[in-house]
Amino acid sequence: MRIAGIDPGLNATGYGIVDVDGDQCRHVAHGVVRTRSADSLARRLVLIRDGLRKVFSQWSPEVGAVEASFVGSNARSALALGHARAAAILALADSALEVHEYAPTMIKTAVGSHGRGSKDEVAKMVAMQLGLADRLSSSDAADALAVAITHWAHTRLEGRI
Amino acid sequence: MRIAGIDPGLNATGYGIVDVDGDQCRHVAHGVVRTRSADSLARRLVLIRDGLRKVFSQWSPEVGAVEASFVGSNARSALALGHARAAAILALADSALEVHEYAPTMIKTAVGSHGRGSKDEVAKMVAMQLGLADRLSSSDAADALAVAITHWAHTRLEGRI
Repeated sequence: MRIAGIDPGLNATGYGIVDVDGDQCRHVAHGVVRTRSADSLARRLVLIRDGLRKVFSQWSPEVGAVEASFVGSNARSALALGHARAAAILALADSALEVHEYAPTMIKTAVGSHGRGSKDEVAKMVAMQLGLADRLSSSDAADALAVAITHWAHTRLEGRI
Repeated sequence: MRIAGIDPGLNATGYGIVDVDGDQCRHVAHGVVRTRSADSLARRLVLIRDGLRKVFSQWSPEVGAVEASFVGSNARSALALGHARAAAILALADSALEVHEYAPTMIKTAVGSHGRGSKDEVAKMVAMQLGLADRLSSSDAADALAVAITHWAHTRLEGRI
């Protein structure tokens, strides 16, 4: 099964593609769709959606996973995140991909990042789990791969129960 | 010029279409795209976007106007509103419609609703301005028409300066 993980953000939306087969999880691709704050909101949402559609068309994932938003206390950030998430979710829906959502705590547990779980630690754990020689330079892409890994962990868990 | 006004919401997204010509503003259509909370977020966003696309294809507006979000203190509501707004803005972009955003206070001023400006008052003022015999039963559609009227008021103001 090929999984697409997405970490949505208005400035930078990370994506990560992994292939899983039982206990094996293999890295396929990762990257970031970026938008400029100088552009209109409409333009930025189109760029995120169409950028992800292109990624899905290139890599043909079979299922999508998105981080269930951590709703902090800042309403302005939550609104911006809502915009980016909707663009990402519509890209998944347009590509006929089921959308699974995972809470940040589940994601940290799935990649074996315990305690405070800094961005850096998640990137390190993801690179280790996927056997990547290089550290992931983008935390957005690392987070996206972490969501994909979480979906894999979740489906394995379900299979065992 | 034909204007589409949108009042986005995850449960109910109002739309209102008006034709304007100088000092004249004529009601063309209004309605609400509804989604069920039992449906997945992906499904609801697709329904909002595709519902609006259908409206735009039916009524062929030339420009779009959306309420610039009032960002309250509730981050959870802001996230949900962000989701709905993005679906509406993408529907406008997909229909090649420019998106204009207007602050709630501007909208109230444009429809002549002063003071506290309850939902009911906006609906009453919109019906009066458009010469509608019946009161608007949906406050979502009334708010959408109010945004369209605001864009008209704004372009007239710009023309005069």
